[in-house]
Amino acid sequence: MRLAIIGMGLMGGSLALTLKKKGFVQNVIGVDPNVEHQQKALELGIIDEVMDLDKAIAASDIIAIATPVNIAEQLLPLILNQVDKQVVFDVGSTKESIVHIANAQSKKGRFVPTHPMWGTEFSGPAAAQSDAFAEKATVICNKEQIDEDALELVEKLYQQLGMHILYMNAKQHDIHVAYVSHISHITSFALANTVLEKEKESDAIFELASGGFESTVRLAKSNADMWVPIFMQNKENVLDVLNEHISQLRKFKASLEKENFEYLSELIHNANQIKRILK
Amino acid sequence: MRLAIIGMGLMGGSLALTLKKKGFVQNVIGVDPNVEHQQKALELGIIDEVMDLDKAIAASDIIAIATPVNIAEQLLPLILNQVDKQVVFDVGSTKESIVHIANAQSKKGRFVPTHPMWGTEFSGPAAAQSDAFAEKATVICNKEQIDEDALELVEKLYQQLGMHILYMNAKQHDIHVAYVSHISHITSFALANTVLEKEKESDAIFELASGGFESTVRLAKSNADMWVPIFMQNKENVLDVLNEHISQLRKFKASLEKENFEYLSELIHNANQIKRILK
Repeated sequence: MRLAIIGMGLMGGSLALTLKKKGFVQNVIGVDPNVEHQQKALELGIIDEVMDLDKAIAASDIIAIATPVNIAEQLLPLILNQVDKQVVFDVGSTKESIVHIANAQSKKGRFVPTHPMWGTEFSGPAAAQSDAFAEKATVICNKEQIDEDALELVEKLYQQLGMHILYMNAKQHDIHVAYVSHISHITSFALANTVLEKEKESDAIFELASGGFESTVRLAKSNADMWVPIFMQNKENVLDVLNEHISQLRKFKASLEKENFEYLSELIHNANQIKRILK
Repeated sequence: MRLAIIGMGLMGGSLALTLKKKGFVQNVIGVDPNVEHQQKALELGIIDEVMDLDKAIAASDIIAIATPVNIAEQLLPLILNQVDKQVVFDVGSTKESIVHIANAQSKKGRFVPTHPMWGTEFSGPAAAQSDAFAEKATVICNKEQIDEDALELVEKLYQQLGMHILYMNAKQHDIHVAYVSHISHITSFALANTVLEKEKESDAIFELASGGFESTVRLAKSNADMWVPIFMQNKENVLDVLNEHISQLRKFKASLEKENFEYLSELIHNANQIKRILK
């Protein structure tokens, strides 16, 4: 099986490395306008050769779109126009918008909209990992629109990666990820900005930062080129969750201002229920 | 050397286990009104015997106060009244308030106000670790008020734990920890409440939660009995930071509402500067 990876960053690179290691693909073609990424990906053994988009489509059995979500939307019609028996899938963090674009294409049955729930705060081919994805969930959206053989191939691919497949419609997906992924990134970015603002006054502050700070702010290292388009595409859902989050923070603020420590304790006990979900 | 641990939770238990393993203390006395904690601590080899507070003070060379910060304030005068050559230190997350209380005591020179910047989101003796604290920073406050021998002993203790000692005044300490510790806990609690609120409508949401969510929400498992008194004592600083954090979140909100994606990108690029501090 020959895989074409469009975009050789963290996701594309990790897909290529892991699928090759598992023996699911034998040969990987890389497509990326960034020459540095091309060279790095060749160097790291992520891809076997670089091709232009058109040639890569013609030469491959399965095509993974692993670019920022705004680029994926631009590329999808171009790619679907050129496919015959090939299977195309994306790995983007938003689904409603790309499914909408796919629906206008005659070959929409060849496209499998997916979202593997794996990632790190790092980006670029050097961040790629060869044992990624295992034990995590992946989403396949609107499966009733997908050609049977295309769906089957992508399901097999995710099973090979050791992922647990969830099926849902794109709209539901986008609401859910606003809660369990997008808002975490916004709070981390905002927390980093809060603390960096303070740092201007005091150099010593970060000598005190320990594990708790690190884990809540880790995501603030995430790449703007990837995340701005995600937030744009999922604007309505992200705003809903952000408003709810600000209102939850205001409850903490009110309990402190009013020295209502019983209420503060209640808020914390309620938050502790997250133990049911996070072990 | 004989150590008395007042409060046998995560901090007290980890201190006892690690200091014994390092050979810094040979014998550990435990003081805790919670009978279950007493038994668990004996079972786990955290302590060698249980004593009442008065007897423990008389029988020990060094006394660690490792209770919630409100209890520490109540105990400190009682303990200082009974010490002679013993050294007393605390490990609480707020320092201004306890230093203020110490200052009213005639034996204030025997008390070393400290804050080791180590912890986990778990609590109780079962959460204690025997290889804790290493490579982290610890703070000693207002050292000019401390008897020379007492300061030296506590410095030696933290050096044995492999910690890097920072000296600062209690006021500065409380401002800094509001930024690098207390606000992280509040955002985690609020984020957990945001998502738990949504969960009522949808069971599937947590199947999608991955590493990013887990790391930003991990601290939401933290114990209310420990954190409410910290927030109470550091109320003014925490409110300052919380207001700044809410205003940073509002910038993200405004950029999304106005679809000002250039500004959104700027906010994220600014947050990325946290890379300078977190590797």
